[in-house]
Amino acid sequence: MAALAQTQTQYVYRHPHPAVTTNVVIFTIEQQRLKVLLVRRPRAPFQGVWALPGGFIAMEEGLEESALRALERETGMQGVYLEQLFSFGRPDRDPRERVITVAYYALVPSDRLTRRAQSDVDWFAVDALPTLAFDHRDIVELAIARLAAKLDYSTIAFQFMPREFTLSELQAVYEVILGERLDKRNFRKRVLGLAHIEPVGQARRQGSHRPAMLYKVKHPERVEIISSRRSR
Amino acid sequence: MAALAQTQTQYVYRHPHPAVTTNVVIFTIEQQRLKVLLVRRPRAPFQGVWALPGGFIAMEEGLEESALRALERETGMQGVYLEQLFSFGRPDRDPRERVITVAYYALVPSDRLTRRAQSDVDWFAVDALPTLAFDHRDIVELAIARLAAKLDYSTIAFQFMPREFTLSELQAVYEVILGERLDKRNFRKRVLGLAHIEPVGQARRQGSHRPAMLYKVKHPERVEIISSRRSR
Repeated sequence: MAALAQTQTQYVYRHPHPAVTTNVVIFTIEQQRLKVLLVRRPRAPFQGVWALPGGFIAMEEGLEESALRALERETGMQGVYLEQLFSFGRPDRDPRERVITVAYYALVPSDRLTRRAQSDVDWFAVDALPTLAFDHRDIVELAIARLAAKLDYSTIAFQFMPREFTLSELQAVYEVILGERLDKRNFRKRVLGLAHIEPVGQARRQGSHRPAMLYKVKHPERVEIISSRRSR
Repeated sequence: MAALAQTQTQYVYRHPHPAVTTNVVIFTIEQQRLKVLLVRRPRAPFQGVWALPGGFIAMEEGLEESALRALERETGMQGVYLEQLFSFGRPDRDPRERVITVAYYALVPSDRLTRRAQSDVDWFAVDALPTLAFDHRDIVELAIARLAAKLDYSTIAFQFMPREFTLSELQAVYEVILGERLDKRNFRKRVLGLAHIEPVGQARRQGSHRPAMLYKVKHPERVEIISSRRSR
């Protein structure tokens, strides 16, 4: 099945081969809304339409490596920890040819945003997405579902938090991701029961409310940064 | 990037393309051991070496469809619900050319095993695997880790259970997957707390022990058969 010949810029195979791309769903929470990073496509197909960062893999690079390279090239974002989400391979998902995309996702705390002042890269609230190219809306929706499911059994939400935070701030993050209000007492019981956080020993006063206890993550090194796996 | 020409059996592209395969990790529990289904490779590379069922995708079929086709072709197994596990794409994982594989996994209850009396298809206990072709050991290990992680927050274990079962039988399944002994009282509290099962109202006597209550799954239609997603 190996390439039989390479004549100028042609690659010849005995069997048809698909193209393979990677795409990345980068989440952040900004102004109490869950947002994803999109880029405007500079060329056909879907020229001018918003899409997830991504691109064709190079033959000598790993999948995650390719996703990181595309992310940096298209958005300037570096050093993001990616987790593989799902591979999308519907035969008709790209009008050019058979293209299979390996999708990744990542969480970025809002205070680490490196916003590029460019009109072709922007953050969009997930409940107000523009029309997306290809099947990228399916990819975003699956990423949101994965994120929401992980809240229940992982430390994933703490990636969005600053070093010290109140339980109200943490609850706000859960509510933004889940897209629903949570009962304050049940929420506190649940997150304190998970034993991932501990009180800092200080309180913070906000407005006229009584001071709120500050918490921090107990084992920051164990917070699920959704990719400590070695590259595959 | 589309194929430029198709001359006899040659496919020509402007850019190098990887090959894409699917592989399937089929689990069962048999004689108190977690086992996976392997096939012996009939040709090079790794001729005669055990490997996961799988094969190259066809251009007109979806990824899951391809995995199901390969599974049936190589093992005779049909109608299995697959969940996508991970895509493996290390550049050197196949000696022939760049091959990316989309791995799936599935659980099959032991009483539904359709064992083929063939020497080239067999079940192997995960703690006694033979040498595997390619990076298939990595794939099996990731599938085991995923399965173990899911025990804690899903109904996945019930896929291994017959219609009616005792808590001891259920505990045995957990212990087999986790590879460790569990405390009986804690286990019972935990699974009954999950509220996925209910007593049948009958008991079963085994040997000289006192009769054990039989349980069944409360909402069999909601048991995670690890793929109710639409094909992507």
